[in-house]
Amino acid sequence: MKNRVITISREFGSGGRTIGKETAKKLGIPCYDQELIERAAQESGFAKEYIAREGEYTGGGKWFSNAYAGIGSNYKMSNQDQLWLIQRKMILDIAEKESCVIVGRCADYILKDAADCLKVFIHADMEKRAERIVKIYGESDAAPEKRLKEKDKRRSAYYRFYTEMEWGQAKNYHLCLDSGALGIETCASILVGLY
Amino acid sequence: MKNRVITISREFGSGGRTIGKETAKKLGIPCYDQELIERAAQESGFAKEYIAREGEYTGGGKWFSNAYAGIGSNYKMSNQDQLWLIQRKMILDIAEKESCVIVGRCADYILKDAADCLKVFIHADMEKRAERIVKIYGESDAAPEKRLKEKDKRRSAYYRFYTEMEWGQAKNYHLCLDSGALGIETCASILVGLY
Repeated sequence: MKNRVITISREFGSGGRTIGKETAKKLGIPCYDQELIERAAQESGFAKEYIAREGEYTGGGKWFSNAYAGIGSNYKMSNQDQLWLIQRKMILDIAEKESCVIVGRCADYILKDAADCLKVFIHADMEKRAERIVKIYGESDAAPEKRLKEKDKRRSAYYRFYTEMEWGQAKNYHLCLDSGALGIETCASILVGLY
Repeated sequence: MKNRVITISREFGSGGRTIGKETAKKLGIPCYDQELIERAAQESGFAKEYIAREGEYTGGGKWFSNAYAGIGSNYKMSNQDQLWLIQRKMILDIAEKESCVIVGRCADYILKDAADCLKVFIHADMEKRAERIVKIYGESDAAPEKRLKEKDKRRSAYYRFYTEMEWGQAKNYHLCLDSGALGIETCASILVGLY
């Protein structure tokens, strides 16, 4: 039987990671967030050899085929593409190994045929998110709204680039929750209830 | 205290109306759907006088101001605009009177400042919806996918025209649910739990 995985995409400052951690804790399963996956990917010994092998692979999706079409062996992947490939492999490995919560990294897309996923998107209005990032990350030179817009733009572009889907469209998820209106505890309870 | 209203926007064939009815039944509050609101609006005696009065009103939103900008008293509203105004008034009256569930008719937008709303969007993938409309409405000359696409297009255009927002964007709702994946009973239970 496929493992059951909850994937959480989230707007910056919406508390999506906290909801993921809360949910995982209540369910007694691990929660993998972006930081954890990135660190593990960077530390992993298999990184170089994996990329060398994966570099010959052209069936992994349109973006990948395009990237390699007509390009000789001198072609070098961008660091971001390399990291994407390693993270993709790690996410597939994690889902193969155990039921868990995975926050970010397009895990919904990566696991779409590989695991029994509950695909979740967490968002909140600008005001609530601004409040939250100042509380958690502190003030910075840039106004919180500006920081949020910048991050939203990056996440949305990343998602679109690697999945060819629009970020934040209800139809791409089983469940979208406004954590600002519903509250973080309530969101986690809904996810626990559905699992 | 403002009444508490659950507004449900939904893709055709997603079972949004059924979820609304189920939820209302479990909560012991009424459910107003499109059919009921349209019939009541058409049967209402105040229709003509209300429109005559409302015709002088230009503060109701950009679309309305635009529609009337520079237009003399000879201007006639389209039937759709007339119906929108009556339905808008009816929805405001309903929410003023009692807590309830309202399905469709941009109620989320109409009530945004008038009631304590839980704004819900129900969707499902094409396959599940096609199955459902054939089961409920029977076969027709047009393939179910074609009927769905046509309806989606109309609802989306209607919503955009009167609200200037994009339909099906997660950020416009407190909660978006994939009824095909989660099941109609589960969706209703989540709404009951949140109320």
